[in-house]
Amino acid sequence: MRIAVDTLGGDHAPHEILKGVAIALREGGFSSDELVLVGPQAVITKTLNEEGLTDLPTIVHTEEVIEGHEKPVVGLRTKPNSSISLCVKTVRSGDADGLIAFGNTGATVAAATMGLGMLPGIRRPGIAVTILGRGGRFVLLDAGANPTPKPEHLFQYSLMGAAYSKDLLGRDNPRIGLLNIGGEASKGGEVIRVAYETIEASHLNFIGNVEGNELFDDKADVFVADGFVGNMVLKVVEGFAEYLVHSATASRRDTGVRDVLRDMLGASDFSEVGGATLLGVNGVVLIGHGRSHASAVLPALRAVKADVEAGVNHHIVESLASHGGEVPST
Amino acid sequence: MRIAVDTLGGDHAPHEILKGVAIALREGGFSSDELVLVGPQAVITKTLNEEGLTDLPTIVHTEEVIEGHEKPVVGLRTKPNSSISLCVKTVRSGDADGLIAFGNTGATVAAATMGLGMLPGIRRPGIAVTILGRGGRFVLLDAGANPTPKPEHLFQYSLMGAAYSKDLLGRDNPRIGLLNIGGEASKGGEVIRVAYETIEASHLNFIGNVEGNELFDDKADVFVADGFVGNMVLKVVEGFAEYLVHSATASRRDTGVRDVLRDMLGASDFSEVGGATLLGVNGVVLIGHGRSHASAVLPALRAVKADVEAGVNHHIVESLASHGGEVPST
Repeated sequence: MRIAVDTLGGDHAPHEILKGVAIALREGGFSSDELVLVGPQAVITKTLNEEGLTDLPTIVHTEEVIEGHEKPVVGLRTKPNSSISLCVKTVRSGDADGLIAFGNTGATVAAATMGLGMLPGIRRPGIAVTILGRGGRFVLLDAGANPTPKPEHLFQYSLMGAAYSKDLLGRDNPRIGLLNIGGEASKGGEVIRVAYETIEASHLNFIGNVEGNELFDDKADVFVADGFVGNMVLKVVEGFAEYLVHSATASRRDTGVRDVLRDMLGASDFSEVGGATLLGVNGVVLIGHGRSHASAVLPALRAVKADVEAGVNHHIVESLASHGGEVPST
Repeated sequence: MRIAVDTLGGDHAPHEILKGVAIALREGGFSSDELVLVGPQAVITKTLNEEGLTDLPTIVHTEEVIEGHEKPVVGLRTKPNSSISLCVKTVRSGDADGLIAFGNTGATVAAATMGLGMLPGIRRPGIAVTILGRGGRFVLLDAGANPTPKPEHLFQYSLMGAAYSKDLLGRDNPRIGLLNIGGEASKGGEVIRVAYETIEASHLNFIGNVEGNELFDDKADVFVADGFVGNMVLKVVEGFAEYLVHSATASRRDTGVRDVLRDMLGASDFSEVGGATLLGVNGVVLIGHGRSHASAVLPALRAVKADVEAGVNHHIVESLASHGGEVPST
C-alpha cells in the first residue's frame, strides 16, 4: 500500500501539507515507504528534516503546480509536469495505490479522469462527500465533478454511492435518496424524473425524492444530486456553519457556545474526514479542501487507505455487473 | 389598506392562523376593517369570540382548501371556491391590497399568477425569501416558483430582488450576485452564463457569481438562482439549523447552547419574518411556511403592509422601464 501526496496544491502548500505528512509519519502509523511525495525535492527534504524526520519517503520532484484559479484543461496542457499530473502518473504506473490532492479540484478531476480512465462501464466520475447528520455520516454526491449529468450518470452515482456507503460507512443496504424540491416522482426537470425511474428500476434500496430540509434527518444514507446542486448544498452548509461560529464568537453571550458549535460542526469538517472521494475513476483519488492545514493530511491518508483496503472500486464494478450493464432498462 | 388571510391553508390551520389573527387584532395594531378572513364562517366567528374579540373582520365563507399534497393545477380546477382562490379574487377585485397564505405553495403561486396576472413586462413570478447573514438580511430568489427559468427570467429576478431589497431592507444600491459553483463568468450551464451577461449589461449593481459558501458573507444583498437551486438552498439551511438545535439539545453538554443557537437561528425563521414574497405578480402575495403557528401571522401581515406601502411592485415596473423593456440587450 502506497499513497502519492500532491504537496504543491492548496492554499497552504507546501508547508502545511508537509507538516501534515510529518504528523502522519511520526504519529499516524504511516511508514516512509507507504508514501510518495510529489513536489520540490529540496523544500520537501528540508521541511521534513526540520520536523525531525530522516527516513524520508520517495520524492518525485517537480516545481510545477496548477493554481486554484487556472482553467484545468489549460493547466494540464501547459504544465505536463504539474504535481497533480505526476501524482496521477504514479498511480497509473502502479507505484502508488491512490493519491491525495488539496489543489485545484477541476484539475484533479480532469487529470484523474484522463490519466486513470474510468472503471469499466462507468461513464462519468462523481465527487462523494460525507456529512454528519442525525443518523451519523451520510454520503452526498456528486459534489461538483459533473454539473449537468444525464439520468444514467445519476443512476451510476446512486450505485457508486451505495458501494461507498457500504464499504466505508458500514451501511448494510444503503438507502438512496434523490435530492429534489418535492417528494412526488413528477417533481424536478426531465433529467431528474428519468433518473428517478432508472434508480427505481434497479436493485438499489431507493427511497425516492428527498427535500433539502430532510438532508440531516436520517432519511437516506446516500443523497444523489447533479454536480451543480451537490456543490451548492455542500458549500452552503460549509458557509452557514462558518457564519454560525462567527456569530457565536461575535455575540460573546456565552463563550461555551462557540466551542460546542465547533465540536458539532467539526465533525462535518473536511479537515477531520480527510476530504472528498472521486468515485468512478480507475484508481483511488482523495480531494482535500483547498484551505486544508496540516491536520487534514493524516485523515486524508487514512481515507485513501480504507478505500483501497475495502475495495470500493471492485464493488462498484460488481454492482454494475449485477445490474446487467451500464444502465438498467426502465 | 386591507389584507386577505387564507385561514384554511397550512399544517395548523385554521386554529393557529385564527389565533394569530387574534394576536394581530388585540396587540398587533391591526384593526378589524384592515383584514378579510377567508374560511369557514362559523369556525372563524367562534374561535375569534373565544379569543375575546367581538368586532370581527369581514369573512368570506368557504370550506374548500387545496391540501399540501394536491397538485396545484388540479386543485384549482376542481375546487373553484378554495380558500386561496377566494383570497386571490378578493385582491383582484380591489377588496384587499394583498394576501397571506400558509398553504400549498404551488397552488398559491398558480392561483396568484392566473388570478392577478403578471406586472407589465414581467414574464415569470419568483419567490423571494430573506435570510440573516453577517451583513444583516439578504434576499434569495427564486426560492421555488420557477425551477427551470430562462436567462431573461433570472435577469428579471435580479431586478425584482433589487427593488425588494431597496424598498424593504433599505439597501441603497443593492449588490446582485448570481449563485454559481465558481467565480468565473464561464461557470455553470448555458442558462446561467447567458444570465450573467444579461445582468452585467444592465444598470443593476452586479457583482458577478457567488458561491454557496459565500452566501452568509455579506458579498451581496440579493442572490439570484433558479427555483430548483434556490429552494434547495433555503431548505438545506432550514434543515441544517433544525439539526443543530436538535444536536445541541441531545448533547446536554450545555443547555445554554440550544437557546443561543435558537436565538441566532430564530432570526432566520419564517415565523419571525412572516414568510416569502411572491414577486412579479400584479398584487402583493405573502407565502408563509406550511408549518407556521400563530406567531407567524402578525409578521406576515406586517410584511404585506410594508410591501404595499413601499410600492415594491411600482418600483419593479419603473426599473424595468429604465432598462428599456423586458430584457436589456447584451
